[in-house]
Amino acid sequence: MNGYELTRFFEAAPRWVWSAPQSQIYPTLRQMEQAGLIEGQKEIRGTKLKRTVYSITERGLEELRTWLGTDHAAAPVRDAFFLQALFFDMIEPDRAASVLKTYIAEQEQLIVEWRAHREALLAKNTDLLKERLKDRPPAEHDRIAKLKAHVFAGQIAVAQARADWARESLRLLADDV
Amino acid sequence: MNGYELTRFFEAAPRWVWSAPQSQIYPTLRQMEQAGLIEGQKEIRGTKLKRTVYSITERGLEELRTWLGTDHAAAPVRDAFFLQALFFDMIEPDRAASVLKTYIAEQEQLIVEWRAHREALLAKNTDLLKERLKDRPPAEHDRIAKLKAHVFAGQIAVAQARADWARESLRLLADDV
Repeated sequence: MNGYELTRFFEAAPRWVWSAPQSQIYPTLRQMEQAGLIEGQKEIRGTKLKRTVYSITERGLEELRTWLGTDHAAAPVRDAFFLQALFFDMIEPDRAASVLKTYIAEQEQLIVEWRAHREALLAKNTDLLKERLKDRPPAEHDRIAKLKAHVFAGQIAVAQARADWARESLRLLADDV
Repeated sequence: MNGYELTRFFEAAPRWVWSAPQSQIYPTLRQMEQAGLIEGQKEIRGTKLKRTVYSITERGLEELRTWLGTDHAAAPVRDAFFLQALFFDMIEPDRAASVLKTYIAEQEQLIVEWRAHREALLAKNTDLLKERLKDRPPAEHDRIAKLKAHVFAGQIAVAQARADWARESLRLLADDV
């Protein structure tokens, strides 16, 4: 992919497993190239530099595999919505309920998107997966697709837990004690 | 609380709903004071300035209530562990399994801590909650405690969903396809 394609990729999947602001794409590509993790191939049409297409190097692949196989410290807990909910007793129950309803709708929207993506992966029908499978033995294709699809099953389960919790919060707010 | 107590508070609860690095505490207190959201009371013993104790102002309270009652855009999705799991097909199943087991242990540890905190809130037995309830009518105490405790029930449900998903991932990795 080139920088433009990467930017488009992250734009198209803003709520994927990872998101990257556009401003980070080009500086990060340059840093990774300087570190020898990726290399850019300049495409020239006629006398004009058209674009630089990056691919991972052997060293980059090794670095990636090391990262993938390492335990990383858990990120600090920072859930802005749970923080907000921790003080719902300070506002009118109706306002809190309205915030919770928006949140439930967001989680349900994420579930819809992730389900669709999970199905597409199981059907080996995403551009990125098709590209990846080209280099892998056909006997492994099903296993790879299942493993990747399962990550989205995890995201769905988390969003479902959040939505269920928010619905229970609505019931708690409505209770007169 | 003063800056030192706040620092200790965030240190003691590193995996709470929110975490703040120590380096942010004092600059943030100064900014909030300049914005009129909190005010510092200097305590002087004899001729020495002992410490500055901050409390929220009317304007700060208003700002907080507005924030609490507003829908905020969901944070961009950035789950480093799901990202890592998305490429488990690139490493040995044993290494991926070892990373997953560490993750499961972490989630289970969080569940233990959050359960204890939830129980303490339900029993109205945390320093912070006791302090808060002083200003609130006794008839509301149970409701406030239940609402706050429920936030930790949400965190527990999310951690449980993650741990269950990771266990299912272990089974998937072990499957020969």
